[in-house]
Amino acid sequence: MLNRLTRTASIFKRFSSNMSEQAAAATAAGASAKNASKKSKLQVSLKTPKGTKDWADTDMVIREAIFNTLSNIFKRHGGVTIDTPVFELREILAGKYGEDSKLIYDLKDQGGELCSLRYDLTVPFARYVAMNNIQNIKRYHIAKVYRRDQPAMTKGRMREFYQCDFDIAGAYESMVPDAECLSILVEGLTGLGINDFKIKLNHRKILDGIFQIAGVSDEDVRKISSAVDKLDKSPWDVVKKEITEEKGQSEETANKIGEYVKLNGSLQEVYDKLNSDPEIVANEKATQGLADIATLIKYADAFGIDKFISFDLSLARGLDYYTGLIYEAVTSASAPPKNATELKKKSKEDEDASAYVGVGSIAAGGRYDNLVNMFAEASGKKSVQIPCVGISFGVERIFSLVKQRAAAAAAIKPTATQVFVMAFGGGKDWTGYLPERMKVTKQLWNAGIEAEYVYKAKANPRKQFDAADKSGCPLAVILGKEEYLENKLRVKRLGPEFADDDGELIDANELIPIIKEKLSQVHQDGVNEVTRLIRGL
Amino acid sequence: MLNRLTRTASIFKRFSSNMSEQAAAATAAGASAKNASKKSKLQVSLKTPKGTKDWADTDMVIREAIFNTLSNIFKRHGGVTIDTPVFELREILAGKYGEDSKLIYDLKDQGGELCSLRYDLTVPFARYVAMNNIQNIKRYHIAKVYRRDQPAMTKGRMREFYQCDFDIAGAYESMVPDAECLSILVEGLTGLGINDFKIKLNHRKILDGIFQIAGVSDEDVRKISSAVDKLDKSPWDVVKKEITEEKGQSEETANKIGEYVKLNGSLQEVYDKLNSDPEIVANEKATQGLADIATLIKYADAFGIDKFISFDLSLARGLDYYTGLIYEAVTSASAPPKNATELKKKSKEDEDASAYVGVGSIAAGGRYDNLVNMFAEASGKKSVQIPCVGISFGVERIFSLVKQRAAAAAAIKPTATQVFVMAFGGGKDWTGYLPERMKVTKQLWNAGIEAEYVYKAKANPRKQFDAADKSGCPLAVILGKEEYLENKLRVKRLGPEFADDDGELIDANELIPIIKEKLSQVHQDGVNEVTRLIRGL
Repeated sequence: MLNRLTRTASIFKRFSSNMSEQAAAATAAGASAKNASKKSKLQVSLKTPKGTKDWADTDMVIREAIFNTLSNIFKRHGGVTIDTPVFELREILAGKYGEDSKLIYDLKDQGGELCSLRYDLTVPFARYVAMNNIQNIKRYHIAKVYRRDQPAMTKGRMREFYQCDFDIAGAYESMVPDAECLSILVEGLTGLGINDFKIKLNHRKILDGIFQIAGVSDEDVRKISSAVDKLDKSPWDVVKKEITEEKGQSEETANKIGEYVKLNGSLQEVYDKLNSDPEIVANEKATQGLADIATLIKYADAFGIDKFISFDLSLARGLDYYTGLIYEAVTSASAPPKNATELKKKSKEDEDASAYVGVGSIAAGGRYDNLVNMFAEASGKKSVQIPCVGISFGVERIFSLVKQRAAAAAAIKPTATQVFVMAFGGGKDWTGYLPERMKVTKQLWNAGIEAEYVYKAKANPRKQFDAADKSGCPLAVILGKEEYLENKLRVKRLGPEFADDDGELIDANELIPIIKEKLSQVHQDGVNEVTRLIRGL
Repeated sequence: MLNRLTRTASIFKRFSSNMSEQAAAATAAGASAKNASKKSKLQVSLKTPKGTKDWADTDMVIREAIFNTLSNIFKRHGGVTIDTPVFELREILAGKYGEDSKLIYDLKDQGGELCSLRYDLTVPFARYVAMNNIQNIKRYHIAKVYRRDQPAMTKGRMREFYQCDFDIAGAYESMVPDAECLSILVEGLTGLGINDFKIKLNHRKILDGIFQIAGVSDEDVRKISSAVDKLDKSPWDVVKKEITEEKGQSEETANKIGEYVKLNGSLQEVYDKLNSDPEIVANEKATQGLADIATLIKYADAFGIDKFISFDLSLARGLDYYTGLIYEAVTSASAPPKNATELKKKSKEDEDASAYVGVGSIAAGGRYDNLVNMFAEASGKKSVQIPCVGISFGVERIFSLVKQRAAAAAAIKPTATQVFVMAFGGGKDWTGYLPERMKVTKQLWNAGIEAEYVYKAKANPRKQFDAADKSGCPLAVILGKEEYLENKLRVKRLGPEFADDDGELIDANELIPIIKEKLSQVHQDGVNEVTRLIRGL
């Protein structure tokens, strides 16, 4: 867009001799701004804070199309949406994120309450459910979250980024809401044209059972779990070292864990393997988890989503609050490059880790049955059991995948403009018909039609066609100097294939119905460029 | 919604004897959460921070409809949208907001850059334009902004609130973009069914001229201007006292100001009055402003928006950055109650000022020709003249007005659900057809149709109809125990008027086209409840 705007601007510069008072006044005002800035000796870095960025132009169009696709899917499943504040009382976020709590952004103490920016949408959701004594709800929430992490901008790992969450709260039949969240995951990604993904799935209770079998004490489970969680980035021998050397487990324990966490395959395969393992079936937690998996197998089949799922015992997920099924969707771009460690050492750019990290998971979620109750009890409310399960789409990461379909992206235009209103005339008495163009444009606006005109008193036809061309709009309405006086307007298709077409002279009173008719012809196939891009058409 | 959810929950409680492992596991998990919370002695206030709130249920539906209405209008005018980070480098916001700078939220210094939450969308926009060397752009931005103000929750004055901004940057013909912003203001409010508003309009240069004529020195202009700005809340004698006693101007100066600022009327009336005032026409600044007004009169007439405008010399607007036209839209609810001071004294509730403030302006804006250049120069870039003009809608305040059309709001439902999938059967071998209902529902989802089913293995018909009823959806698809085995489904209209209608037995393969046909019949008028509410139909 910058190019386009610069070009447009240069057109205006060429006309600067005609420039109005406005611009002249602006120049004068600029001089006084200059003095003001000198006085205050303000030295400003013209940038956004580290790990954040502005979104604009066709990127915004694509991102909004992603949001629309996902929220339509959420609505399809009976979801309602909520919006919570961007910051929460600090105590609400405390103790929910394990080792990652250090990444929370705090607001400065300016008197009053201590607050922090939200780290995810799940904890605010649980706070909302507990606070309002809600017994069940299917809610979706698309909003920004904040993490003081090392950014990897081109991989979509930002400090400010959007999450798109769908959660089901309420005590229901086992695995029914869980299966629906997995179905939404599949519908969401395929709906965005992403088909080459895999859902890694595990169960916290099975994992806990494995740790018990391996001899990990209860209080060590979470830290061993977060070591295992690194298996998507590091090979087993690195993780094993962390388990034994850093986290004080025996060689034998580590080997036992290693034996299990390398298991993966279809739900049925891994289920069968575990279900015939005497140590597993003798462990109470693991058996509970396995029963869930047996139920899930039926429902995944009913939804036809089993082919996307890989039951992977190495998946652990870092967050403290998960209690049951956990899952994340990965693509070939998710993993870091093979020589990541080397690249990291070489990287001089401390600001951006893009060179040596992968895109990571593009969607993730799981079951968290205790979070709402934690809030209810901690606030002195009566204990309430509100089991929850959810799925969160990493929109920024998905965006970076969709964006790669670059050829299609070229056809997207950032504006929605459909009609450009122009005036053609000449001679000494030619006014340029500016108020007249305004009047006609206003009629189009009032009829809900996207329309623009050149903000100049007089502009020659070529400049007006250039401006229409840049907006990419399909129709022009032309006020001819004489024709307009006879209550006539000219309607013309734009684009190179209509270059020689003079258009059609119409009665000015017929403008709106004729434009509507012509626009419906233009948009006959009903699928616009963004939809094509999103769906990978 | 809480009521609705509580009722639904009680239905589930009555079935709790059938409750699955899931719920049982959840209860067990709850017990351990209890222990955990006792251990950590966490005492949490279950609330949102002061001046913020959760949005949910039909409020969200209405708010999203307001956003859609406004962004469609912005697109209609050729606007593109951008998204900037919620926080900016602190130095970007410094010196832009006059006396209100104390209301800015700062982030805590956790190492790295010092940042603050954005206070409006205008300063980030100017930063964006300067940073990217943009010469011209029409952009809209709908996002949250943050002010540590005294909240007045029921009047829509919050510490976290949405703004909906449209701005035109670029050097253009005088008053052309300004008139378009005013037209957008009118289209926006009337499009939301608000017709009883008035646009108070003034010009900073005319105001500056008046201050010069009255004998205010250049360095005192901004502080006198911010005193005058209080005239919408306080009577002249209070403001006069501030001008003389607090801000050190002479009695004569104050009286001269008072003479001018009481002028208001149509653009033409006030223009004529000023244009025949020898002191005004002798003042250079005032004359520049008057020339703008003369031009604006033509364009306001072309757009047919003159009837909404009141040229009001008492309007000053607090922000530092305005340089030309300034305007704000007010309704009868904008002003505080007559006995505001008394009510304020009486108010014991320090947390909420709703009792003694008005809704305030519901949209406001103006021209700011120096802001982009201030950024460009302060960052050491070449001086660039990018004059800007914009309009900002106060969505939260508009929401509180729209919400008052409460009767219509009752018909709005928070979910989009169109079809409820049920199964009827009985006998010893009756499974409840849960996976079968999932399969049928999945077909509907895949066809883009909003569908739900009850998350229970077996549910009797009444419970299923109750759930459908609560979702407010118009159609049911019923899997009859025998019919389903013959590849048949039953499609039935819902609602009291169809109580005795058994519906239609169809071939299961025909499900999607038949449902689509029936839904198009249901939604024949094409105007839903939200649209009716928004438009005040």
